[in-house]
Amino acid sequence: MADWIGSSCPAPSEAHAKLALQRQASLTKPAGSLGDLERLAIDLAALQRTDRPSAIRAPIVIFAGDHGVAAKGVSAYPTEVTVQMLHNFASGGAAISVLARELGVPLLVVDAGTLSEHPIPGVVTDKPRRGTRDFSEGVALTAAEVVQALGCGRRALGQAIAEGADLVILGDMGIGNTTSAAAIACALTGRRPEMVVGSGTGLDDAGCERKTRVIRQALVFHRIEGPASKVEDVLSAVGGLEIIALMGAIISSAQHGVPVLIDGFIVSVAALAALRINPSCRPWMIFSHRSAERGHQLVLEELQARPIFDLGLRLGEGSGAALALPILRLACALHNGMATFDEASVSGRIA
Amino acid sequence: MADWIGSSCPAPSEAHAKLALQRQASLTKPAGSLGDLERLAIDLAALQRTDRPSAIRAPIVIFAGDHGVAAKGVSAYPTEVTVQMLHNFASGGAAISVLARELGVPLLVVDAGTLSEHPIPGVVTDKPRRGTRDFSEGVALTAAEVVQALGCGRRALGQAIAEGADLVILGDMGIGNTTSAAAIACALTGRRPEMVVGSGTGLDDAGCERKTRVIRQALVFHRIEGPASKVEDVLSAVGGLEIIALMGAIISSAQHGVPVLIDGFIVSVAALAALRINPSCRPWMIFSHRSAERGHQLVLEELQARPIFDLGLRLGEGSGAALALPILRLACALHNGMATFDEASVSGRIA
Repeated sequence: MADWIGSSCPAPSEAHAKLALQRQASLTKPAGSLGDLERLAIDLAALQRTDRPSAIRAPIVIFAGDHGVAAKGVSAYPTEVTVQMLHNFASGGAAISVLARELGVPLLVVDAGTLSEHPIPGVVTDKPRRGTRDFSEGVALTAAEVVQALGCGRRALGQAIAEGADLVILGDMGIGNTTSAAAIACALTGRRPEMVVGSGTGLDDAGCERKTRVIRQALVFHRIEGPASKVEDVLSAVGGLEIIALMGAIISSAQHGVPVLIDGFIVSVAALAALRINPSCRPWMIFSHRSAERGHQLVLEELQARPIFDLGLRLGEGSGAALALPILRLACALHNGMATFDEASVSGRIA
Repeated sequence: MADWIGSSCPAPSEAHAKLALQRQASLTKPAGSLGDLERLAIDLAALQRTDRPSAIRAPIVIFAGDHGVAAKGVSAYPTEVTVQMLHNFASGGAAISVLARELGVPLLVVDAGTLSEHPIPGVVTDKPRRGTRDFSEGVALTAAEVVQALGCGRRALGQAIAEGADLVILGDMGIGNTTSAAAIACALTGRRPEMVVGSGTGLDDAGCERKTRVIRQALVFHRIEGPASKVEDVLSAVGGLEIIALMGAIISSAQHGVPVLIDGFIVSVAALAALRINPSCRPWMIFSHRSAERGHQLVLEELQARPIFDLGLRLGEGSGAALALPILRLACALHNGMATFDEASVSGRIA
């Protein structure tokens, strides 16, 4: 593994959490009546070590990669869609492009391993190879390629936060990547593929059975069936370049003291793998949503994560996390902008 | 009842719903992958009779009232808080004031029946009386007062949408109003008070028992225990002026063809009463959130409503609806702004 990957992340500030909790109790509302928004504001205050948390500067970074295993018919869409969507991100037509524009945040798109032979305008290219090998026939990546992909995540994160970031939004793109992510989730949790595999971009029942079979056989073939498997072996065996780059970005962001707003299934699997390698990154993860992809709930439970909402999303691209950003922003605005009982001369509880 | 209250509301445009559905299927994402956001954009397109739905102009109207039954110790806060909070709304320190500012929407605050003896600066006064009578001892309101409160809702709605509204956000303020709302919900649904009563602003267990007993006795006293009760009798017996004004505002908004973003328990009870009087208003209701107040889930089921999220809120003021506005705005932006598969030259499904 990369040498930097295990370095400790800073701990959230307990002093700032305590102050934020006190402030919440002093604001003109029944104590606790802003529910999850109070928790989010307090968590951000502790992570940002501030009295006035903020979620204004929230760059979005998307990592894209292709998957050799896509040749086995595990996706409803053809492989060329990955690269086509990178062009769509860059030209502003994709969901995440629209969201970035509406939210007023920068969008950084990284080709972490697509099949594209050429650099794509508006996209950063940083990849050890074009697509992974088909993991149903051999290892997806060499150990050196895994290290390089982790570094890709770290480099992109550094670029994204260079001009300041209150938090970072991470997203994924890659035809076939729910197959890789499900295989990783199975290997890290010991769950059977039937419990984890979902329809991805919209596989029919026969496709889901095929996908499940491919993963089951690969777990046996690579000897990564149990939760005792080493993370590096799992990543090498069935990993995806964008998933590993996401891991690198998550850990690097936490090491920089920048909270990460976690999106759906793919980013959550990267978060779980990151947690297994470097547990000190866990407090820096804020979970945005529960997706409609089957295995997401399991992975969230493994992470002991309670997401902000469930809108039945299953798009990826960081779109669910971007949709949660306004909730974080409003949680901060309420925390920072409401009057206290004293300031507004409002009476407190009777008893 | 007021003569205008039963007039039919327009039906949503099926033609626009169909066009919006087609457009969603043409956008560069797996079909259905934007989950609830697709449904919201399609519903708004049908309601607004447009190809390009919008949630930019979304005035917030809050109705406030006091409750005679508060004298029976059914709230954790003293009655004077209602009027104190009206000052707080007007001076910008309340949660909904912060949210209105952040969202860039106007906030109209209406004193529909507080105990205030004088008009409050920045607040519209339109009330038949100062507070309701204690419904544990007699009827809360006369039939004429109910009609006047419905009219208050209609007048405020007219004022709020005069400069144009893509939709309207409604909210409530009133110490004691979960007691009135719970009594109305029991009377309209035939549920027992134990199933509906919650802690409101934060009553302890003994307080909740007291509140439950007060409601149980009032339902018997006023003979409104069953779902066969007439709505006008229920409102007169246990109604609240702000709750009845909310009913008037909901029906009037629907009659104007303006969608209403419904907040938590209080506004949902008003929506249920509105539905019982004028079923044609139902399509105009968009439900924002499931609150932590106990009876809300029951009322949502009765309305066959699926709210956008559950953030554990229990504040009122329209705050939950305001927090959902960015989701609606982003749903519209995605619907209107994403590229189609053709425009972006992205391949479709394999099969």
